[in-house]
Amino acid sequence: MGIHTFFTSLNDLERIIRAPGRFKFEEHNVAAHSWKVSQYAMFFATIEERSGKEIDWKSLYEKTINHDFAEVFIGDIKTPVKHSSPELKEMIARVEEGMMEKFILREIPEEFQATFFDRMKEGKDETTEGRLLELADKLDQFYESFAELKRGNADPEFVKMYRIALTKLLHIPLEASVSYFKEVLLDDVISEETVIDVREITRQVLQE
Amino acid sequence: MGIHTFFTSLNDLERIIRAPGRFKFEEHNVAAHSWKVSQYAMFFATIEERSGKEIDWKSLYEKTINHDFAEVFIGDIKTPVKHSSPELKEMIARVEEGMMEKFILREIPEEFQATFFDRMKEGKDETTEGRLLELADKLDQFYESFAELKRGNADPEFVKMYRIALTKLLHIPLEASVSYFKEVLLDDVISEETVIDVREITRQVLQE
Amino acid sequence: MGIHTFFTSLNDLERIIRAPGRFKFEEHNVAAHSWKVSQYAMFFATIEERSGKEIDWKSLYEKTINHDFAEVFIGDIKTPVKHSSPELKEMIARVEEGMMEKFILREIPEEFQATFFDRMKEGKDETTEGRLLELADKLDQFYESFAELKRGNADPEFVKMYRIALTKLLHIPLEASVSYFKEVLLDDVISEETVIDVREITRQVLQE
Amino acid sequence: MGIHTFFTSLNDLERIIRAPGRFKFEEHNVAAHSWKVSQYAMFFATIEERSGKEIDWKSLYEKTINHDFAEVFIGDIKTPVKHSSPELKEMIARVEEGMMEKFILREIPEEFQATFFDRMKEGKDETTEGRLLELADKLDQFYESFAELKRGNADPEFVKMYRIALTKLLHIPLEASVSYFKEVLLDDVISEETVIDVREITRQVLQE
Amino acid sequence: MGIHTFFTSLNDLERIIRAPGRFKFEEHNVAAHSWKVSQYAMFFATIEERSGKEIDWKSLYEKTINHDFAEVFIGDIKTPVKHSSPELKEMIARVEEGMMEKFILREIPEEFQATFFDRMKEGKDETTEGRLLELADKLDQFYESFAELKRGNADPEFVKMYRIALTKLLHIPLEASVSYFKEVLLDDVISEETVIDVREITRQVLQE
Amino acid sequence: MGIHTFFTSLNDLERIIRAPGRFKFEEHNVAAHSWKVSQYAMFFATIEERSGKEIDWKSLYEKTINHDFAEVFIGDIKTPVKHSSPELKEMIARVEEGMMEKFILREIPEEFQATFFDRMKEGKDETTEGRLLELADKLDQFYESFAELKRGNADPEFVKMYRIALTKLLHIPLEASVSYFKEVLLDDVISEETVIDVREITRQVLQE
Repeated sequence: MGIHTFFTSLNDLERIIRAPGRFKFEEHNVAAHSWKVSQYAMFFATIEERSGKEIDWKSLYEKTINHDFAEVFIGDIKTPVKHSSPELKEMIARVEEGMMEKFILREIPEEFQATFFDRMKEGKDETTEGRLLELADKLDQFYESFAELKRGNADPEFVKMYRIALTKLLHIPLEASVSYFKEVLLDDVISEETVIDVREITRQVLQE
Repeated sequence: MGIHTFFTSLNDLERIIRAPGRFKFEEHNVAAHSWKVSQYAMFFATIEERSGKEIDWKSLYEKTINHDFAEVFIGDIKTPVKHSSPELKEMIARVEEGMMEKFILREIPEEFQATFFDRMKEGKDETTEGRLLELADKLDQFYESFAELKRGNADPEFVKMYRIALTKLLHIPLEASVSYFKEVLLDDVISEETVIDVREITRQVLQE
Repeated sequence: MGIHTFFTSLNDLERIIRAPGRFKFEEHNVAAHSWKVSQYAMFFATIEERSGKEIDWKSLYEKTINHDFAEVFIGDIKTPVKHSSPELKEMIARVEEGMMEKFILREIPEEFQATFFDRMKEGKDETTEGRLLELADKLDQFYESFAELKRGNADPEFVKMYRIALTKLLHIPLEASVSYFKEVLLDDVISEETVIDVREITRQVLQE
Repeated sequence: MGIHTFFTSLNDLERIIRAPGRFKFEEHNVAAHSWKVSQYAMFFATIEERSGKEIDWKSLYEKTINHDFAEVFIGDIKTPVKHSSPELKEMIARVEEGMMEKFILREIPEEFQATFFDRMKEGKDETTEGRLLELADKLDQFYESFAELKRGNADPEFVKMYRIALTKLLHIPLEASVSYFKEVLLDDVISEETVIDVREITRQVLQE
Repeated sequence: MGIHTFFTSLNDLERIIRAPGRFKFEEHNVAAHSWKVSQYAMFFATIEERSGKEIDWKSLYEKTINHDFAEVFIGDIKTPVKHSSPELKEMIARVEEGMMEKFILREIPEEFQATFFDRMKEGKDETTEGRLLELADKLDQFYESFAELKRGNADPEFVKMYRIALTKLLHIPLEASVSYFKEVLLDDVISEETVIDVREITRQVLQE
Repeated sequence: MGIHTFFTSLNDLERIIRAPGRFKFEEHNVAAHSWKVSQYAMFFATIEERSGKEIDWKSLYEKTINHDFAEVFIGDIKTPVKHSSPELKEMIARVEEGMMEKFILREIPEEFQATFFDRMKEGKDETTEGRLLELADKLDQFYESFAELKRGNADPEFVKMYRIALTKLLHIPLEASVSYFKEVLLDDVISEETVIDVREITRQVLQE
């Protein structure tokens, strides 16, 4: 019943834990994740802008803060599920979309429905902003798995998550950002003392 | 790879929170829920047995402790999602089934696969044990929503959850159990002091 | 040493609890708060844009996501402290500023220092974006205190926080937004069932 | 005041933490523990059944889900206490028994009292089901201590707990189950990467 | 082995939750409780001193900070257990004493054993300091139950705990303190807004 | 409004987390910290007394339990902030003092104001008791950082905290206590198995 419902539902995302079920040294919620993504994206957009790309800041802002809002409906589906088959992944995407449509039609005042449909649609498209979102979202997965490996979490899922995130990061078609990530940031990351040998895992991924 | 994987995955269910996102005074995990369901079911099976029904205790034991194991794969999908459309509900059921099949084929030793397929299949069938599972599962939803209303949680979702659980409980085709629930247990429930008027909500449901 | 340090420090803000010490039914962290502020601000910026104002989206994006970053240094100073005297408030502001300057000079690579000094400076200025930040920040305080009153938290501090936030919201020089807040949103808020009589408190504030 | 009191007291066990006071990476509650025990017991009962033993499934079901109910009265007494002297252990057992008797006489309707006295009595007797309960209960202690050692918890109490649980497991008079545990399960356990050298501790216990 | 073991065991008491199992809006640990008791005791000792009593401050200091150290061995036994029968209460006291003796002989260097035996013995004796400890301990129970009633916790156990604590407080043979409690402090307590009618419960107790 | 306000504010300190923001394996609150400090201080006062010093137990009792009460106003300012510059540290001290004065004048009855001003003033003076407070407070920092290093927390801040605490401990002008700490206690500490090499760090500090 209006924007008030939307605003209070934001609060629910502070209670949705990412990667539920799994043992983790640090728990993260979807609201905080969204904020970190918006921070990473702003930094790399700055890099891209300096390298000559034009940034549509409004679009980037919209994409980053809204990209996981749909989790308010179904929670954070455990990642291995999402990755287990393209068919399952699509099914889940359709469930989320259906819920989102329903929510907008029922809760958002008519005058704002078009805006919400636009803002809440899948943000990871072929635009520079879509790619920055993709990079920032992967970077948070990279950091979340890194933090577990650093503290000695031996659950193989986190090694896998780290490898997948790193591999994807290295292939996002944003030259300046990926280059900065690879040549500057990654260096600082792997010079940290870690319980599990992240430097070696990183070296392997870089060689592949 | 093997029963060890199955055993450690049980532990993950102690970390899966039911009804994630929603504000609740009390949080419940899926492991503890499964235990409570197995307790309720044992009590009502005793009632049914006394009223002349034959109970297959092995089947009841299997059904109750395994009925939510699939949540280890996708977490506790928020209930409103499950209830929002029969199509969505079925889609989610298919996702869970697919994950379960994959898990059994990959993790469970061949000699036990048939047993696991049998134990992990949907337990809420037309048998007395299937109905006792249905009753016990609804009873936990009844108690979880009751506890929130009792403490004054004004989220309308919990009134709805209480109404739905109570209505379903009253219509489960287990005469002796439903009669005991309605005439004895419910009386004790509504004589508790509650912040939200549960007695009145109950009266309304009973009249419908 | 570098952007990596900045990125990992973002994570610390997910562990900084707002209004520490005070009994609250819901705890909020600074990272999630920042995200909610960026959401509210986007909505009201849309309102302002429709009413004819021009919005600098990049600036709004920067202001909202960075406005509480300094809390990484000193935590969330209890609000009554901040409000207790203008002198104390200023002293704390100077402490934060000093810490921020130190952090940028030591951790941020030289090529980005100017950008960071610009982004991390106090965002609540006289621009439309500064005012939208002010409105969004107050709105979160409004919602946080509202949620406590709704659940019956009788700590007088939350009534005070609600009154102050509401009063300030009504006086922010953003006509379209304040009018939408007052005429649409507030109506939905006070039509919720609450343990403490928020409707009455609201009525009193509106009359003053 | 009836079965309602019994049902709500089940909920309290979700709040009783096992091994309170001790630093642990993972906390477990008594309700979830009871469920895991009922799962392990079902698996090993299947092993025993296949090896020719007859299983009284109703008895096994009753024993496993009820075996720690008495902790609702006194909480989880710290294990070192229980192990410190046979006299203390017995004293605590008598306290629990006294509380249980009192509870059944006061809360459980007369028609169910005999059933409750039967179900709530000490389950670890000489029957196959009693031994399966003993095995399953020790297995959970084994897994809880293993998980701490795996993550590097250097509290010597957990090495001790692991040794004691393993030793007891190897001597339970259930040939098929112990053989499966020793030859199959244990192999998977010690092939996990662990911070503390569990493989070596295990080898020592096996040699004793 | 040595004072280091004693010092680290203090830390365990920060993890022992008081009144485990019970639903509470606020959880308290034994370490924090001990500190609050030492604060209340200091205040009332000041009152007694002003009224002419002589205070042995060293004894009061020792008694208050050590009075619950024994819980490090067995945790916080649920209060209803302790109150259920004098026999049970004594049995638990003997268990604690036995554990304490064992601990001192094994961990504390010989030169300090006499001091520790003296400091760790039951502190609630007939001295002024013993009575101040009794008063301070009851006052914390009074405040813990008050806080639950104030927030609407309808668990009858908390009304009982409040009544018992208040009744005992009023009968402790420390005239000046009890008079200050009754005439000054209690007035402030019952003038707070509470969900459950604490004023009425207090009035009833005062009349008895 | 009286001592009741003071007593309930003690409770708030059970909710103030020390070193907020930082990842830690163990969280500590200010109330429990104060109690541990009062325990350490009592032990070392005993050492000093045996070595011939006279102890003012009342003063020690007052100093230890009150030394962090001011955190109720501003929370636990992150230590690096306090250490970052003498000017900042002093500014924060002045903020705390201002808040404390205000609190006493507003909340404490006139007859007790002088007593409270005395008890709440900075306790770390040149008296034996002031030095014992300093030692006990540093010892808790020593233990908190030790526990993190022991469990493998690689945050360099904890190595720094350990070094600073140890260095300061070794230089406190309390000969008997420092000698006992250095020759007896420290030996037990560094003989524990730790993930990070605390023994080596300790050796380095001792050599400096």
